[in-house]
Amino acid sequence: MMPSWLSESIPAPSSARMEEARNRQEQLTKPRGSLGRLEELAIRLAGLQDRPLPTVERVRIVVFAADHGVTVAGISPYPQSVTVEMMRNFSRGGAAINVLARAIQASLEVVDVGAVTDPGILPGLLSRRVDAGTQDFRTQPAMTPEGLRAALRAGAEAAQRAVAAGCDLFIGGEMGIGNTTSAAALACALTHKAPFIIAGPGAGLDPQGVARKVEVIEQALMCHQHALKTPIEILTALGGFEIVALVGALIAAAQRRLPVLVDGFIVSVAALAAVRIRPELAPWLIFAHESAEPGHRVVLEAMQAAPLLQLGMRLGEASGAAVAVPLLRLACTLHREMATFAEAGISGA
Amino acid sequence: MMPSWLSESIPAPSSARMEEARNRQEQLTKPRGSLGRLEELAIRLAGLQDRPLPTVERVRIVVFAADHGVTVAGISPYPQSVTVEMMRNFSRGGAAINVLARAIQASLEVVDVGAVTDPGILPGLLSRRVDAGTQDFRTQPAMTPEGLRAALRAGAEAAQRAVAAGCDLFIGGEMGIGNTTSAAALACALTHKAPFIIAGPGAGLDPQGVARKVEVIEQALMCHQHALKTPIEILTALGGFEIVALVGALIAAAQRRLPVLVDGFIVSVAALAAVRIRPELAPWLIFAHESAEPGHRVVLEAMQAAPLLQLGMRLGEASGAAVAVPLLRLACTLHREMATFAEAGISGA
Repeated sequence: MMPSWLSESIPAPSSARMEEARNRQEQLTKPRGSLGRLEELAIRLAGLQDRPLPTVERVRIVVFAADHGVTVAGISPYPQSVTVEMMRNFSRGGAAINVLARAIQASLEVVDVGAVTDPGILPGLLSRRVDAGTQDFRTQPAMTPEGLRAALRAGAEAAQRAVAAGCDLFIGGEMGIGNTTSAAALACALTHKAPFIIAGPGAGLDPQGVARKVEVIEQALMCHQHALKTPIEILTALGGFEIVALVGALIAAAQRRLPVLVDGFIVSVAALAAVRIRPELAPWLIFAHESAEPGHRVVLEAMQAAPLLQLGMRLGEASGAAVAVPLLRLACTLHREMATFAEAGISGA
Repeated sequence: MMPSWLSESIPAPSSARMEEARNRQEQLTKPRGSLGRLEELAIRLAGLQDRPLPTVERVRIVVFAADHGVTVAGISPYPQSVTVEMMRNFSRGGAAINVLARAIQASLEVVDVGAVTDPGILPGLLSRRVDAGTQDFRTQPAMTPEGLRAALRAGAEAAQRAVAAGCDLFIGGEMGIGNTTSAAALACALTHKAPFIIAGPGAGLDPQGVARKVEVIEQALMCHQHALKTPIEILTALGGFEIVALVGALIAAAQRRLPVLVDGFIVSVAALAAVRIRPELAPWLIFAHESAEPGHRVVLEAMQAAPLLQLGMRLGEASGAAVAVPLLRLACTLHREMATFAEAGISGA
C-alpha cells in the first residue's frame, strides 16, 4: 500500500558536526549556555546541514491548498469558497504568508492539491489537483489509496524542487476551509485522545460549533474504527489532500537532508503522521511555534517537541513558521560571527 | 532629591490610533485574532507612535557598562576585569550584541558609565563615567546622590540621542560583572521578596555561589533597611551606574514618545524601578523575553508584563531584546501590507 519511495533512507544528523558546533559555542564570548535555545538551534542545524557553520539563507515556503468534504457538516465559520478565494489572494500577494515571505526573503509556492473549484492558471500557483476536494469522512474514506499516493507525491515533488533550488530550510503550510476538523480527527486517531480534548475553534468557531465539530469527529472515528490501524490507513480515512501532501513533503525533505521548520497545529499533525511512518524523520523537524488551537499541545507532546514561539497565533499558511525564521538566522549568525574568548583576549570564568 | 526632569510629563498612548489599528486588523484577510500577539503588537505600536501604520525601522540599542563594588564579596564567576575586556570586545564588534545589531540593522552605542578601569578612547564607545565602579553596598550606599543623578542623566542623554537620530524603538542593555547581584538586591527591595527567591546563577554561579549571593543581598538589605523607602533611595543604596542609567533612559524615552523594548532580568529591574518612579511609563515598555534567571519572572509579574519570547537566554547586553526585534517588524509589516477582505474579494465568516 505504501509508495516505495516513502521507505528510502533518511540520514541521521551528523553528530561530529554537532560536537564541533557545541565546542565552538563554548568558546564564544558569553557565559556558557547563555544564548539558551539559540545555541541549541545552531548546534542542531550544524548536525542537520552537516557543516560546522550552518546557514538559513534560502528558505522555501510551500503552501498546499485543498478542500474537505466534511465541510458539509457545518464545521467551519467560513464558506468553502474561501479556499479558492484565498488562493487568488496568495496569487496577488495579499495574504499573511505573502507578506511574511517577502519580509523574510523566502521563496513561496502555492500548490493546489484539490480545491473544490479549480482556480485555473494563476501566477505563483502550481496545479497538482488530486481531486475536487475530499469526500465527507463521516461516512466514507476521505480519499482513495490512489488519491493518497498522488497527494504524497505532490508533497515530495515540492521538497525536491526546494532541494534543486539550493534551499537550506523547508517550510510547509496549508490552506483549506474545514482542515482543522480533518487534522483533529487525524490527531485523535494517531494519539488515541478523545475528540473533545483535541478539537478547538479553528478559524473561529463558537462553543456550539466546537461541540458540533467534536460530534462530527466522533462519528468519523466510529465509521472508520476498523480502518485506523496504520498511519497510512488513518490518512486515507480522515486526511485532507494538503495534509497528506505535507506528510510527503516532510519525509522527502529529510531524505534529502533538508531541515524542516514545522508550522502550527495542522502541519504538526502531518508531522506526527510522518514520524509514525518514518521515525528517523524526527530530528529533521524544528518546531516553530505553539498555536492557540488547543489540540496543538497534545500533538507536540506526542512528539516531545518544544516549539520556539508561543504567540497565540492560529492562522495557518505557514505563518507561524515564517515568523520563527529570524530566530534561526540569528542563531546561525551569532554562531558564525561572535568572537571567541581567545580572539577577544577575555578572561575566562 | 529627585532631578526635576524625571517629573516631566509622559504622554499617554493614542487610544484613537489604537482603535484605528484594531479596526484595520479585523479587516485583514485572516480569521479575526489569528495573528495573536502580533496583532497586539501592531495595535500597541500604533498607539505609542501615534500613527495608524507603525514601523520599527530605526532601532537604537544602547549598552551601559559599569562595575560593582560588591564584586569583592565573590558573587561572580568572572573577574572584574571582564567588564573592560568586554567593552573592548564591543568596540571591535565581536560580542553577541554587535552581531545581533548588525543582523537586525540597529545602531549600537556602548556607554561607559563607570567601569573600574577607564578603557580610554575606543571606537563606538562613549565615556560618561560617573565613578570607577560603585561602592560595596554590603556596608555603604552603592553611590552618592550626585552619582545617581549623573547616571540617570547619562541614560536620559542616550534616549535623547536616539530621538534626535529619528529612531522609532529604543533598546537598553547592560554589561557589568556582578550586576545580577545589584539587580537582585534592587528587585528584593522593590518587590519585598526574599533574596533566595530572586537571586540566581547570573553568568554561571554554582549552587554554593548562589547561596553566597543570597547572603550578600541579605546583608545589604539589613544594612540599608532604613534607607529603602523610595525607588530613588533604593537605587542609591543598591544600584549600579548602568542600572540607574537604564532607569533614566527609559523614562526619558517615554517622555519623548519613543517606545522601549525591554531586555532581560537586569533591564526589567531598571524598568520596575522606573515604573515605580513614573507609573505612566508602563505602557511604553514592551517586554522582549523571559530570561533563564529565576528572579526575572518575579520582576515581570510585579509589572504584569507578558514577554514575547522564552528562549532560556541569560546573556544580557540587550541580546534578548535584539532577538525580538524581527517580531515587532513582522507585526508592523503584516499590519501594513496584508490585503483586506474587501480588497481581496473574500467572503467573511
